[in-house]
Amino acid sequence: MTTPADTVTAGLVVIGDEILSGRTRDVNIGATAEFCTDLGIELREVRVVSDDMEAIVEAVDAVRGRYTYVFTTGGIGPTHDDITADAIARAFGVALPINETARAMLETRWKQTGTEVNEARLRMARIPEGADLIVNSVSAAPGFRIGNVHVMAGVPVIMRAMLEALAPTLKGGRKIASVTVKAAVGEGTVGGPLGRLQEEYPDVKMGSYPQMGRDRVMTELVLRSSDLARLEEAATKVRAMVAEAHARAGVEPPAED
Amino acid sequence: MTTPADTVTAGLVVIGDEILSGRTRDVNIGATAEFCTDLGIELREVRVVSDDMEAIVEAVDAVRGRYTYVFTTGGIGPTHDDITADAIARAFGVALPINETARAMLETRWKQTGTEVNEARLRMARIPEGADLIVNSVSAAPGFRIGNVHVMAGVPVIMRAMLEALAPTLKGGRKIASVTVKAAVGEGTVGGPLGRLQEEYPDVKMGSYPQMGRDRVMTELVLRSSDLARLEEAATKVRAMVAEAHARAGVEPPAED
Repeated sequence: MTTPADTVTAGLVVIGDEILSGRTRDVNIGATAEFCTDLGIELREVRVVSDDMEAIVEAVDAVRGRYTYVFTTGGIGPTHDDITADAIARAFGVALPINETARAMLETRWKQTGTEVNEARLRMARIPEGADLIVNSVSAAPGFRIGNVHVMAGVPVIMRAMLEALAPTLKGGRKIASVTVKAAVGEGTVGGPLGRLQEEYPDVKMGSYPQMGRDRVMTELVLRSSDLARLEEAATKVRAMVAEAHARAGVEPPAED
Repeated sequence: MTTPADTVTAGLVVIGDEILSGRTRDVNIGATAEFCTDLGIELREVRVVSDDMEAIVEAVDAVRGRYTYVFTTGGIGPTHDDITADAIARAFGVALPINETARAMLETRWKQTGTEVNEARLRMARIPEGADLIVNSVSAAPGFRIGNVHVMAGVPVIMRAMLEALAPTLKGGRKIASVTVKAAVGEGTVGGPLGRLQEEYPDVKMGSYPQMGRDRVMTELVLRSSDLARLEEAATKVRAMVAEAHARAGVEPPAED
């Protein structure tokens, strides 16, 4: 994969036994993917690991040297299985003290709600030394950023609030634009000519996605590039190729393109 | 993480730019997770990588030595961006010839549907040397198994049909049973005593999951173990702990437990 100098990349580590057991269906991967694409950040890799110290440290260490940004979700709550802060502190070789700002934020919320302060809840104020807090609008328990690693909650509504809070602090990359061309023929019909067009336009990434479970065979061809002129040029050729395939197969083109 | 001798483990590699760009929401992780749990297989890790040769080879090589089984989804269609078979052949250091059985299966289907045989479609008959086919009820294009790696389609309905076809060929591990205890208090209220019970029952894995977005604060405590007697014993203590927390907080227990 070529990486131009102004490419901004990211890796995501999703932490939680409940995802790997199938008990919880993850929605944070999709939310992070959309978030990155909107900012022009290329999400290159996702890893889902269990609530296991070695597994978390290994995954975070593997991706943090490789991408501009790393995001993690999950494992920052008040219970014994929430060990993400411990794992990040270990990965960075720093201490994990109670952060007084985080503690004050939590205690303010707890006073409002009449919630008892206890040892379990105070776990949420433990922040690796040198980290910045990620304050969010939903939960009083903050995430944190240390180095290029952004540690967020696993609960989707809180995770999304943290992403929103982070957005202004992240540098975006070149925006990638996309064009979708719909074909009323199968992938195998357009596969050959599409491959040749891909060779002609290496800077326009072409993907092909079969659409299952409908009345007729459909294929969506998605072209992506940061160069709008080249993208439009390639799209024109792909549209012509698809029109020819429709004519050859004697089928009507799809209603919308 | 301790690994008893009869533990059967798995890793999943999800292949596809469309997942990382956010264009497609993955549902194969959840389906594979449930499938594994039903068979008593512990899904330990998931990686999502792009349609990139080096990325696929690296991910597959990293997990195939580590777990009993590896599953992959995506990238086995007829277009140029479908390079999973190439990557697996490279990872195993074998050739990628047209498999005559696969070709015959595809050509039979194509004759029935009046589909043209072309170079792009024949890509789907390329199977690494020494691999077994994974035939499925939905698509004539087979997946394949080589070593401990099971290569499946990315289209969810086909992927699930391939999992079903695979099930009889996989050895299951010890079945893990689970008990869920619902608490009408926050995670922070039960976190301390739950952590102490976890220490008392290291063989019963205890997870805590906050329930957001409802009228009242709720926490689900999930206990998992392959030892039913220990699981029930631990669950009895967790229920008593939760009942005490309800009494102390002066709240009604949830309707169902």
